[in-house]
Amino acid sequence: MKIGQQQFRTIWPVAIESDGGNTYSVSIIDQTVIPHEWRIVTLDSVQQMADAIRTMQVRGAPLIGAAAAYGIALASQQAANDADLQAAASSLLASRPTAVNLRWAVERMLRVLTPVPEPQRGERAWQEAGKIADEDVQINRSIGRHGLALLQALAANKPGRLNILTHCNAGWLATVDWGTALAPVYAAFDAGLDVHVWVDETRPRNQGASLTAWELKQHGVPYTVICDNAGGHLMQHGEVDCVIVGADRVTRTGDVCNKIGTYLKALAALDNQVPFYAAVPTPTIDWQITHGLQDIPIEERDANEVTVVSGLTSDGRVERVRVTPEGSAAANPAFDVTPARLVTGIITEHGCYAPDRLGDILQTANL
Amino acid sequence: MKIGQQQFRTIWPVAIESDGGNTYSVSIIDQTVIPHEWRIVTLDSVQQMADAIRTMQVRGAPLIGAAAAYGIALASQQAANDADLQAAASSLLASRPTAVNLRWAVERMLRVLTPVPEPQRGERAWQEAGKIADEDVQINRSIGRHGLALLQALAANKPGRLNILTHCNAGWLATVDWGTALAPVYAAFDAGLDVHVWVDETRPRNQGASLTAWELKQHGVPYTVICDNAGGHLMQHGEVDCVIVGADRVTRTGDVCNKIGTYLKALAALDNQVPFYAAVPTPTIDWQITHGLQDIPIEERDANEVTVVSGLTSDGRVERVRVTPEGSAAANPAFDVTPARLVTGIITEHGCYAPDRLGDILQTANL
Repeated sequence: MKIGQQQFRTIWPVAIESDGGNTYSVSIIDQTVIPHEWRIVTLDSVQQMADAIRTMQVRGAPLIGAAAAYGIALASQQAANDADLQAAASSLLASRPTAVNLRWAVERMLRVLTPVPEPQRGERAWQEAGKIADEDVQINRSIGRHGLALLQALAANKPGRLNILTHCNAGWLATVDWGTALAPVYAAFDAGLDVHVWVDETRPRNQGASLTAWELKQHGVPYTVICDNAGGHLMQHGEVDCVIVGADRVTRTGDVCNKIGTYLKALAALDNQVPFYAAVPTPTIDWQITHGLQDIPIEERDANEVTVVSGLTSDGRVERVRVTPEGSAAANPAFDVTPARLVTGIITEHGCYAPDRLGDILQTANL
Repeated sequence: MKIGQQQFRTIWPVAIESDGGNTYSVSIIDQTVIPHEWRIVTLDSVQQMADAIRTMQVRGAPLIGAAAAYGIALASQQAANDADLQAAASSLLASRPTAVNLRWAVERMLRVLTPVPEPQRGERAWQEAGKIADEDVQINRSIGRHGLALLQALAANKPGRLNILTHCNAGWLATVDWGTALAPVYAAFDAGLDVHVWVDETRPRNQGASLTAWELKQHGVPYTVICDNAGGHLMQHGEVDCVIVGADRVTRTGDVCNKIGTYLKALAALDNQVPFYAAVPTPTIDWQITHGLQDIPIEERDANEVTVVSGLTSDGRVERVRVTPEGSAAANPAFDVTPARLVTGIITEHGCYAPDRLGDILQTANL
């Protein structure tokens, strides 16, 4: 997608010229400083990549997958024996325990690299990581196309503007390009539909208020930021036509693990007959898990994310401010699980599936 | 309740000594600067009182009622003819349109003052405002007693700590003393129950993170601040035994109008069989309204409350920071309506009533 007039992906390899262009660094857009600053960071080692994932300089399930693949590539050009690759994999897997795409990408990289002779592993790793990134872009285009059909059907039954509510950031910043939850929105906007997005600010890290608002603004899509508390009220008053969220993991039974607070929006959507969709690439579906609430480990993140808020002062400085009394305890579960019974459909690159028919993808796509 | 070692109410008249003690100002605790500062503000006119209500230096339905009564008293010692009192009433009523206690208190003051000869109206007004404040304290003590019985019953069926989730601030800061939603918590804590409070931070104004956390801390009640997004997840995992919130207005049919986001917690409570209570003094019940969603006007507040967050910097300054991209639109509905079907009971000074039996109070209390 474009930032200003320049086309960007969220992650890309950069040849190191001093090495004759045979080795690479990886550049990322630092998502911890958006929307107030704009910074590209260059990473040279798997440990730097693991840190970037852990500190959420790169975040979003699909982008974490691509980042992990590039992380293995960084490792393999430095030391590529089996033990080294296993150590790199462990380091990456520990950086965000909830992200199934991370495991998927790491396992794919190891599966591809293990049969390759050590001296060729580096080159093969960059090739495969690039393929994972390209595939993500194609997958998200397809999600956008399938989601567009759903939005067009909703628009056909409704006069005026179509209001879509989203939670957290599952836009192009969360992927290599296009986004998951926002891919249908971009597709609809580009197709001339009159769309407007309610952007949940998404406490504690405010990815909605910062990232989603920022990228929608860059593309020109009308949006309004709301507190996470407001969505239910808006649905009660007919102001939401559709909810689309991304997901960090979807069980084979259609339970959706996504940013904390998603479950509350799904409850409100059902209570007000608003369709609720999760848009995910199939690698986000964990075919090994059937009971989302029991079986998905939920990351408990630092309490500081709750007690301290980052933003821009009126004189243009990024400042961190504490909102609680000194010494307050805070809890910070990062995700929740929305049971399949609350989900209208899962939009994938192969089409939109009712949660109880998710297994059909296995036939459709020969997975 | 105590702040440090000193006993406080949230509002009290102060005799002006230069006038021989026959006229009064009104002192309030400025709730816009808690938890980072501590400031008592003295008000000399009804317009100052209306401003204090509008800017939420005083807030919370019961306290707004007492503040409005004191506002009429301030007006009546300056100019007490019928037209003056009506103008004072209009100014107060416009300051927070959703608050039914405000209307209740203003109407009571006018009803009491109208038959009184003009020269005696000032003195009579201070007397009646003081009576309204004293009654609020007694009402909240009774709410605490009835709520305590519910908490004791829950504790009897559960080993270990009793976890109560609350939204916004309906503590003693929201009343003249004791609180509504927190009155049962204080009563339980004082009675030796092992209680712990999940404090919703309550965006956009963070009254939970600032006021509720602060007052629980002052009293020594264990608490943990959480994002508004987290409560559903905690309920799914058995970490919430009971939800108690206050309300700005309750319909005769038991619909609960309270701080934005309350509805989402009520949906989650029902979905997880967690009892959901609203604790209110009977003046908060609007006997004229039966359809909460249709008939209660919802205040739309300034978008800045969403886009700008106030807090303390690491070097001890209170600073305001913007969390959204420059120029982002934001919507800020301040309240929502929780339908009676989601409410376990309304805890009042006369006892706890199922929402569909709220009318029984009229017999019980001879209202």
